[in-house]
Amino acid sequence: MARVYLDHNATAPLRPEAREAMVAAMDVVGNPSSVHAEGRAAKALVERARAQVAEAVGCKPQEVVFTSGATEAARVMERWPGPVEVQETAHDALWAQRRAGEGVPLYAMGLANSETGIVTEPGMGEGAAREGALLLDITQAVGRIPFSFAWSGADLAVLSAHKLGGPKGIGALIVKQGVDFAPLTPGGGQEMGRRSGTENIIGIAGFGAAIEAALRDQAEGVWAEVEKFRNILETLLEESARETIFVGKSDRRLPNTACFISEGWKGETQVMAMDLAGFAISAGSACSSGKVKASRVLGAMGYDDTQAASAVRVSLGPGTSEDDVTRFAETWARQQAKHRARAA
Amino acid sequence: MARVYLDHNATAPLRPEAREAMVAAMDVVGNPSSVHAEGRAAKALVERARAQVAEAVGCKPQEVVFTSGATEAARVMERWPGPVEVQETAHDALWAQRRAGEGVPLYAMGLANSETGIVTEPGMGEGAAREGALLLDITQAVGRIPFSFAWSGADLAVLSAHKLGGPKGIGALIVKQGVDFAPLTPGGGQEMGRRSGTENIIGIAGFGAAIEAALRDQAEGVWAEVEKFRNILETLLEESARETIFVGKSDRRLPNTACFISEGWKGETQVMAMDLAGFAISAGSACSSGKVKASRVLGAMGYDDTQAASAVRVSLGPGTSEDDVTRFAETWARQQAKHRARAA
Repeated sequence: MARVYLDHNATAPLRPEAREAMVAAMDVVGNPSSVHAEGRAAKALVERARAQVAEAVGCKPQEVVFTSGATEAARVMERWPGPVEVQETAHDALWAQRRAGEGVPLYAMGLANSETGIVTEPGMGEGAAREGALLLDITQAVGRIPFSFAWSGADLAVLSAHKLGGPKGIGALIVKQGVDFAPLTPGGGQEMGRRSGTENIIGIAGFGAAIEAALRDQAEGVWAEVEKFRNILETLLEESARETIFVGKSDRRLPNTACFISEGWKGETQVMAMDLAGFAISAGSACSSGKVKASRVLGAMGYDDTQAASAVRVSLGPGTSEDDVTRFAETWARQQAKHRARAA
Repeated sequence: MARVYLDHNATAPLRPEAREAMVAAMDVVGNPSSVHAEGRAAKALVERARAQVAEAVGCKPQEVVFTSGATEAARVMERWPGPVEVQETAHDALWAQRRAGEGVPLYAMGLANSETGIVTEPGMGEGAAREGALLLDITQAVGRIPFSFAWSGADLAVLSAHKLGGPKGIGALIVKQGVDFAPLTPGGGQEMGRRSGTENIIGIAGFGAAIEAALRDQAEGVWAEVEKFRNILETLLEESARETIFVGKSDRRLPNTACFISEGWKGETQVMAMDLAGFAISAGSACSSGKVKASRVLGAMGYDDTQAASAVRVSLGPGTSEDDVTRFAETWARQQAKHRARAA
């Protein structure tokens, strides 16, 4: 039986539009910094993708700085001259950069949480009534829920292509016009002096094509269908094991994410059992290979260590079918029964 | 008539082996940090490429840290706790990071210069008899001249895939075992905690395949042929314009690079004239788009501003033919004559 991939928050399969753009970009020989015809062709490709990203994110093209992903983009926090505060449930790439200091503070937060799917609107939740600048990690949100950088109140935003069907290893830092900082990376002066290094043109082409396709999907209501399947999944799981805790079910959430706790059945054990049964899911964030520890995010939400260690995340994508989620629910219930039998 | 690309030091065309590996990697769905089957497949791909890079560079696989290119890798200089000295002719990515300080110094230098092709052997040239740690930029050298990190005396090295026929936007930092520094990028803890961020697996696959192919080319003597054509080119240019200054002709040089000065005929004008005539070459380094100023490298070598501003670089690749260089020489001589006529 074909495997079922339900780990789209870790990374999504490459969209056909991205693949096509990347294969085409493989024939572009030049360095975008070169002034000859080959260089200009490479430059044009980068600028086309920049416009695609700007359109999808709701910002100006000149506010888009290509990086190798959201994690590199988040290094802008290192360049911030003042103190840096971080939302407790934010991704490690943000969390790792908390620091005290003098001057204008920067507050960094995730718009949608990768583990739970919970959406925190800037200015309405934890970020409300703060002074200083705002950095939004929009990685899990863009292409799944409506977002406009221009209207968000954010000064900075970071995102990755691979969560929305682009390639891994490419992303962007969005910088509101007028916001200034020392270059992320010094050197040749690419990306308007903000991030030096020869541009990943194949990745950039894939990013542009993927985000354009993701936005089209979103406009066509693809995520309403995904949400329906996610809800079916949760209903089925609840029916088979009433004590299951669904994290964030009453909050505003991403349409594709289910995070649930089966107390005493370790998340990592669930992941391995489901993997053997043909389903790819995850316990906590996919980062930090091999790291198996209770989720900081769930701890911050008030779950105890046993609960936090017993959580898994199932994240659907535009290609997920109703059959995928019903088969998952049946298999999970069977595995849970086996686990209970062994534990008894 | 087909265009002739003679700007391999700016960037090289993608090797077919790299293209094939990248297209295959597009079907690898997982995140290398995920523990399920899809994640393990992605991880295996990364580790295979790491072994390929290590083999080519002459280091251990665990000494290879993938980055988005040599420029990002060079940011390790920012993490160095002591003062940082830089070779005067080094690339901007190194040069931008000079700084004073206390403690063990780091000396950063290029093994082969991108503009002139001149090779400076560590421990034998400028870098000799220094104390402290050594960082080598091996970007232009790897795959073109023999090199072994283990025997080089270097503590750190940086390289990019795209100069040797891999994709742009991927490279590596080589770290001698035991050398320690704060993570280049904090976050999820990928790359042994040294560089967080989801791995660019398509780029990494292309890098591995390209460097393996480049090494095979090198072993088969491809560069001896390239060198022959480079020498033919210089002889032809010299015959047509005896006052041409050939930079570094008596030094140990890369086999593919010719840097020459036609005093009073601006490098950028030469580049544009040759571009219109169907040849891609460059004036100075390809970085910093649009930046047209006298080369810092040639200035450091003792050339005056007029000379430095009248230099161009022609850099050949494994695909360059004798016909390409003879046609280049004829066209350049014709363009030079036109320029002289206009200037007279």
